Amino acid sequence: MNIIEAIMTRRSIRHFTGELIRDEDLETILKAGFQAPSAHNKQPWEFVVLRDREKLRAIKEFHKYAKMVEDAGTAIVVCGDKNKQDRMGFLVADTSAAIQNMLLAAHGLNLGAVWCGIYDSNSLVEFFSQLLKLLENILPIGMVVVGNKIRDRSIQDRYDETKIHYDEW
Amino acid sequence: MNIIEAIMTRRSIRHFTGELIRDEDLETILKAGFQAPSAHNKQPWEFVVLRDREKLRAIKEFHKYAKMVEDAGTAIVVCGDKNKQDRMGFLVADTSAAIQNMLLAAHGLNLGAVWCGIYDSNSLVEFFSQLLKLLENILPIGMVVVGNKIRDRSIQDRYDETKIHYDEW
Repeated sequence: MNIIEAIMTRRSIRHFTGELIRDEDLETILKAGFQAPSAHNKQPWEFVVLRDREKLRAIKEFHKYAKMVEDAGTAIVVCGDKNKQDRMGFLVADTSAAIQNMLLAAHGLNLGAVWCGIYDSNSLVEFFSQLLKLLENILPIGMVVVGNKIRDRSIQDRYDETKIHYDEW
Repeated sequence: MNIIEAIMTRRSIRHFTGELIRDEDLETILKAGFQAPSAHNKQPWEFVVLRDREKLRAIKEFHKYAKMVEDAGTAIVVCGDKNKQDRMGFLVADTSAAIQNMLLAAHGLNLGAVWCGIYDSNSLVEFFSQLLKLLENILPIGMVVVGNKIRDRSIQDRYDETKIHYDEW
């Protein structure tokens, strides 16, 4: 799929067949995450791949916007290492760019994916830190849920000229 | 360019020919920004396109990591609307996903681009807020500098297996 087409047609997918994605596709998605830019090239990300059924079920029960995670079968929790990047704004920006790369890669592989937020909710940060036994310096930022989609979604054009300004507000 | 290839080969470009990018390419890059996902689909982004020579020069003088902005000729300051999304973590994540889409679109159009951070530096936030006459509720997050590149950069493989964990840390 062409890069521009991929960006324009990607949608959040929340309905999955239950069939696991292939290992080579998982690897491609992870590689896409690593290729994001980062402030001062610190690459402060870490990835926790989740396929354990009990853990997926625990997430489904706790995270009210991640009910689809069990059907998807695979989740990747993208974390930031506060020892590598101690400025939270940069840590969130860098890991968010990694997540967006991963969502686009999944779409390019004809898989479905959705971004579930973790950072910005203290209870979710605590829940994932305990569930995944994260170290003190590792902050869970967001979760990419990925699987085989049941169907495509229609393209949504979000372009809005009123949000574009020239040279000043 | 294929989406996976685009993700894997994109690099930050800081050397530009001085020739402005075409209006249709600018529009494609902006459209790519709008197509990012956002928490609860709030789409809290705003874009300020900068081509005014005096403003570009002012940025070059103030922002120590944006010396290339004058040669590039075009910068897009991506802002977040705090009235649409009052949780800063989400605002940074959403706008960062938009920026990553824009960087990839530029690369797909064979243009060069680089992400210059604004948010996380109070002095840069103040500088851009004044320069662009931003409203109180509009927070500048990052700037995409885009132009015609002098040369391609070699591919950098950032994959690191030690940063991948399975089911727990």
